[in-house]
Amino acid sequence: MCELLGMSANVPTDICFSFCGLMQRGGGTGPHRDGWGIAFYEGKGVRSFHDPAPSVDSEIARLIKDYPIKSHVVISHIRQANVGAVNLENTHPFSRELWGYIWTFAHNGQLDPALFDMPLGEYRPVGTTDSEYAFCWLLGQIRERFPTRPDDFAELNSFIHSCCEQLRALGVYNMLLSESTHLYCYCTTKLSWLTRRAPFGEASLKDYEMAVDFYKETTPKDVVTVIATDPLTENEDWSALKTGEMIVFVDGDPSWSRSAIAD
Amino acid sequence: MCELLGMSANVPTDICFSFCGLMQRGGGTGPHRDGWGIAFYEGKGVRSFHDPAPSVDSEIARLIKDYPIKSHVVISHIRQANVGAVNLENTHPFSRELWGYIWTFAHNGQLDPALFDMPLGEYRPVGTTDSEYAFCWLLGQIRERFPTRPDDFAELNSFIHSCCEQLRALGVYNMLLSESTHLYCYCTTKLSWLTRRAPFGEASLKDYEMAVDFYKETTPKDVVTVIATDPLTENEDWSALKTGEMIVFVDGDPSWSRSAIAD
Repeated sequence: MCELLGMSANVPTDICFSFCGLMQRGGGTGPHRDGWGIAFYEGKGVRSFHDPAPSVDSEIARLIKDYPIKSHVVISHIRQANVGAVNLENTHPFSRELWGYIWTFAHNGQLDPALFDMPLGEYRPVGTTDSEYAFCWLLGQIRERFPTRPDDFAELNSFIHSCCEQLRALGVYNMLLSESTHLYCYCTTKLSWLTRRAPFGEASLKDYEMAVDFYKETTPKDVVTVIATDPLTENEDWSALKTGEMIVFVDGDPSWSRSAIAD
Repeated sequence: MCELLGMSANVPTDICFSFCGLMQRGGGTGPHRDGWGIAFYEGKGVRSFHDPAPSVDSEIARLIKDYPIKSHVVISHIRQANVGAVNLENTHPFSRELWGYIWTFAHNGQLDPALFDMPLGEYRPVGTTDSEYAFCWLLGQIRERFPTRPDDFAELNSFIHSCCEQLRALGVYNMLLSESTHLYCYCTTKLSWLTRRAPFGEASLKDYEMAVDFYKETTPKDVVTVIATDPLTENEDWSALKTGEMIVFVDGDPSWSRSAIAD
């Protein structure tokens, strides 16, 4: 299994603290030695980093831990390979353009090979993972149903949830997805989230001896949600998503959610 | 005007030396203070870095200068903005997927606003530059004419050249483009190239006090071509492309070229 990390915030926020915890799991406290990647949205632009080397050894990961890139939406992934070789084209997060927006995607889990029989639309995978195939299928479905960006996202959110449910029928499908403003979080087995807002307190990482006092780092209006495969801190109350549940975060707050469609 | 830098090599090669020269032009010896970006192909995978900050000040640029990422094909760009604000989504190189390959594009020059009347196919710009619009138009043309990857690239190369000629009719269009194996270099005003092969010698940068003895860094079979807006070294023989000329490099060697179609 891989590890996912996402962030949604109402002000540009750095993810150094959470990323520091995550990267320990990439060959340090965790077994996920098969590369890692991270995408930071700044407006509609995306800054992304991919490295097939373990995050705990990576020069680039060290840069990101030390150099605060501030962003509204972040998607990160560290990989323990199951389907697909360990190389750059198989390293999450994956991205494709739709409606003049860069969509970014990361997946944790494994899907039945029947996935590869699902017909693709306009998007083709570059690598050989089940994850990238699922992303290409999903985005092709969205493109076919919504040829242009809808004004109201409710119908789109509902459609994305129903597509995720189809993918869950093929196995374990935990997903983070964004187009720059909305962060889609879908759970099959493991995904937890935590919102930090005033009054801010101190948080301590589980995987590394490090604490931060967010009171000193924030303003009273800041709202920041962090989503991770497993809770990253030991002294905060994380909520776990249920199987088949999707929550869409906008500006740090949940803006839409739906439970599993009855199986 | 911006500065382009490209590389094509028959073995994975780092670009630290040339990049060190280029980044000086980003606010150091040159006026190109409006961001920079670089894409490294490793197989079909791409590792890319984008920063709207000047390259000479950039932490990320320093990392790339010091940390040798080895690649067969590299495309880099430092920007002096003319069309489009200075922000991440307007920072070259741009990329889109076609046929399961990530195409990467960088442009130097400026095109007439009539460009924005040219109908787009499947690809939409994320930012507001003439460059990204031209790329979306070009890739849409390629996709329409070649729905699947051709076995023989001669017809494709010729088609890309004719599209570049259409863009040149709108102004200054110097371009670097790749899909991982082929590096397309098209010139309107300024683009020079240099192939290094055995016997290797020493090269000295023009923009920075630095020399490298490639004899010590290479094997006798290595072939490495560097393409840049202006020659980066002062003691080597660079060749300038002519107006309307395109050269396609594969594994460090020119594999196809064509002169301007008679105007």
